[in-house]
Amino acid sequence: MTSEQINDKNQLRHLISLRKLDRSHIEMIINRANQYLTPVGLPPSRDTVLKGKTVANLFFEASTRTRASFELAAKRLSADVLNLDVNMSSRAKGESILDTIYTLQAMQIDMFIVRDASTGVPAEIARHVLPHVSILNAGESDVSHPTQGLLDLMTILQHKDNIGSISVAIVGDVKHSRVARSVYEALSKFGTTDIRLIGPEELLPKKGFEGARRYTALSDGILDADVVMALRIQRERFTEEGTIPNPREYFQRYGLTEETMKNARADAIVMHPGPINRDVEINGSLAEGPRSVIAKQVTNGMAVRMAVLALAHEHSHDN
Amino acid sequence: MTSEQINDKNQLRHLISLRKLDRSHIEMIINRANQYLTPVGLPPSRDTVLKGKTVANLFFEASTRTRASFELAAKRLSADVLNLDVNMSSRAKGESILDTIYTLQAMQIDMFIVRDASTGVPAEIARHVLPHVSILNAGESDVSHPTQGLLDLMTILQHKDNIGSISVAIVGDVKHSRVARSVYEALSKFGTTDIRLIGPEELLPKKGFEGARRYTALSDGILDADVVMALRIQRERFTEEGTIPNPREYFQRYGLTEETMKNARADAIVMHPGPINRDVEINGSLAEGPRSVIAKQVTNGMAVRMAVLALAHEHSHDN
Amino acid sequence: MTSEQINDKNQLRHLISLRKLDRSHIEMIINRANQYLTPVGLPPSRDTVLKGKTVANLFFEASTRTRASFELAAKRLSADVLNLDVNMSSRAKGESILDTIYTLQAMQIDMFIVRDASTGVPAEIARHVLPHVSILNAGESDVSHPTQGLLDLMTILQHKDNIGSISVAIVGDVKHSRVARSVYEALSKFGTTDIRLIGPEELLPKKGFEGARRYTALSDGILDADVVMALRIQRERFTEEGTIPNPREYFQRYGLTEETMKNARADAIVMHPGPINRDVEINGSLAEGPRSVIAKQVTNGMAVRMAVLALAHEHSHDN
Repeated sequence: MTSEQINDKNQLRHLISLRKLDRSHIEMIINRANQYLTPVGLPPSRDTVLKGKTVANLFFEASTRTRASFELAAKRLSADVLNLDVNMSSRAKGESILDTIYTLQAMQIDMFIVRDASTGVPAEIARHVLPHVSILNAGESDVSHPTQGLLDLMTILQHKDNIGSISVAIVGDVKHSRVARSVYEALSKFGTTDIRLIGPEELLPKKGFEGARRYTALSDGILDADVVMALRIQRERFTEEGTIPNPREYFQRYGLTEETMKNARADAIVMHPGPINRDVEINGSLAEGPRSVIAKQVTNGMAVRMAVLALAHEHSHDN
Repeated sequence: MTSEQINDKNQLRHLISLRKLDRSHIEMIINRANQYLTPVGLPPSRDTVLKGKTVANLFFEASTRTRASFELAAKRLSADVLNLDVNMSSRAKGESILDTIYTLQAMQIDMFIVRDASTGVPAEIARHVLPHVSILNAGESDVSHPTQGLLDLMTILQHKDNIGSISVAIVGDVKHSRVARSVYEALSKFGTTDIRLIGPEELLPKKGFEGARRYTALSDGILDADVVMALRIQRERFTEEGTIPNPREYFQRYGLTEETMKNARADAIVMHPGPINRDVEINGSLAEGPRSVIAKQVTNGMAVRMAVLALAHEHSHDN
Repeated sequence: MTSEQINDKNQLRHLISLRKLDRSHIEMIINRANQYLTPVGLPPSRDTVLKGKTVANLFFEASTRTRASFELAAKRLSADVLNLDVNMSSRAKGESILDTIYTLQAMQIDMFIVRDASTGVPAEIARHVLPHVSILNAGESDVSHPTQGLLDLMTILQHKDNIGSISVAIVGDVKHSRVARSVYEALSKFGTTDIRLIGPEELLPKKGFEGARRYTALSDGILDADVVMALRIQRERFTEEGTIPNPREYFQRYGLTEETMKNARADAIVMHPGPINRDVEINGSLAEGPRSVIAKQVTNGMAVRMAVLALAHEHSHDN
């Protein structure tokens, strides 16, 4: 029943993918996150649970927000934090990722937060580390970004009571989005069945997302939706050959605005994983307006990452 | 009377520019800095006043010394510090500065130390953050570098008794210098009227610096000066078309040496904001000699930055 | 008798080169390192001895592992740590290394960990800093890497009883290796006389390594060796004109494998300073197998660096 992410005492050891977690494990993480949540303006939660522990940020892909969020989460739990931007150094020297990990593990690092552009790297690392070490996936190719999925789920749960019966519309480059995959997996565990994927034909995924419906027209897809989530779109998706030649055209067809949101429910919330391209995926007044929960997603992300770090620590404690 | 940098309890909230501060506010900062000042060789001052606070270094322009100085100042006050070199990540991804700030603010960061090559960025950010958040300008285009102005003023006050009647000579590329503008503003608040700007015609500012006199000959400008401050000159100022085709020529006309300093007062001090180009702006023996207060400027800079961080924290405390 | 690395109270002040240390000083460091050593899996040692001290990592050459090791060592001793990647900032601006050091020293930094591609830089810096400041060499051109030499010696001492009578084979690009020079110096102080240098003719050093024997055939050089240490080889050593045109050829002639290790003693240990090029210098199964002490080298390196930092701190304490 439990995957290798959960040990035989039912503790979280690694966090690689939400797909293999049970609802109960996700609830365990979100419950802990709720304990760490304080509103912006009040001091953030702090804990000494990771005092004496060492957490390494191992980012093989550039990141500001996710790296910063994990770094602060670890520091607020009193861990020592080591930042490694590995493109610049070891990997350029030809060392394999596993050898980098073996080396850092021998420095008595307890937890690795890994981001990598290739599929399977976090799981591969997890198969090779010592029993007390934890691997936390901070973004893996286009397949998995579990803490993002958890923070999105946590944000939706804060605003919508009946998670099983809501409609969630995901708008944009779903095909290449690890964010979309992870939030889909999280929602599926919680019984949400009405999930809509909206975007130009070539950016809708052919596989996966079982049960989700595809829409190429934004107005159709967000009809009566309770949650509308815009995804980030990369500049390289815009080509003269495709159906969306440029950002302006994309914004006209898929951009979220007060106007295009009229088809959704009156109390629908608007989400975006960031970083935002204003006037491409969403306009500024909607992003900063009362429907937007974008800042809350970030604050919840801090709490989720603290929760994951604290729970993974407990695994090692009993090891 | 007070600008938005000072709140209605007369506390420092942001530090954007010295121009809008009263002398009393500058004195408040320097008095606090004096409390944090210990001589090199003794342990630096430490305080727990920022324990539990998070300070982000948000540098959109490369910097070693200013970033290091702020980072150490924050750590010695027990803050958590997050370093963000944003050129490398978010900004490359097209996110606006304000959205980066909103995201980091949602991570419960309390203070942002901002350096940017564009005019107006720190003030723009300050207008948009939540009431408990402080923005500290660490260098803004060629217009403002307030902690540098404060540390320069503090250094001058340590060596010269009658600040109102001294002569201060600023030598070099005044036109493009945020350092010159900030020290001019600091001195003006303290009643110094004899300020001389010395440099080749094309590098002397046409506007601003009211009351200051312009000189193109170093020997004239530093005559009987109490304080001589060399500015850093960028390599790109040397052109065949200009009056200073190369660094060697610049050094002959504007370089500070024991010889050229003979026109200044016998007890004149020599300053430089660093990093120094030896044998361009100043020669090594003068920079390391008894007249030089360059190392003291750096030590005072630590104390000034601790003072600014601690004072800005007090604002948020009462918020 | 004692060099400038040791002060007149017989305390370690700087660590620049093992060549000028006595055996007693090396023992002092290794004894302290042994106190800081805990096995991987147990929490690393911690100490508050550097509380209130500031340690700067000043790396003019890219590094992941050595920088990480020093950073964690300093943090586990409770120091504040400042990371400076100076290629990116000051040095590009034309500031001299000494001026960078003077500036950082004026920020009340107590210890500098320096890596530089030029010979003599750490010693030059050490000659110019204030009496309470320590310089620790983290890799200097091809001449010195003292903490690596110490950790290698410590690892050998853990596995071999009679250090004076063992045979140590060093395989690879000895000519350009600061690692080889430092371990040779460490072993020489401890009376090891049977040191063999193995590699293609053009990569064997013409000078230095007195008493060591040169071998171009791996099988001859490692005959009955107790310790076999592979060195890292840079890609630029492979040229069509040389005797080793490519990595594949190199591995055939000098690669360590279970097979090629058969000429060494049955209980011989295998070492590598990392990062490893698998299937160039060593194959994976040997690197991860029971003879390999590569991970132990890394863990010992943490303890050695903690020891050096703690000892250098004691010097300044009495200063």
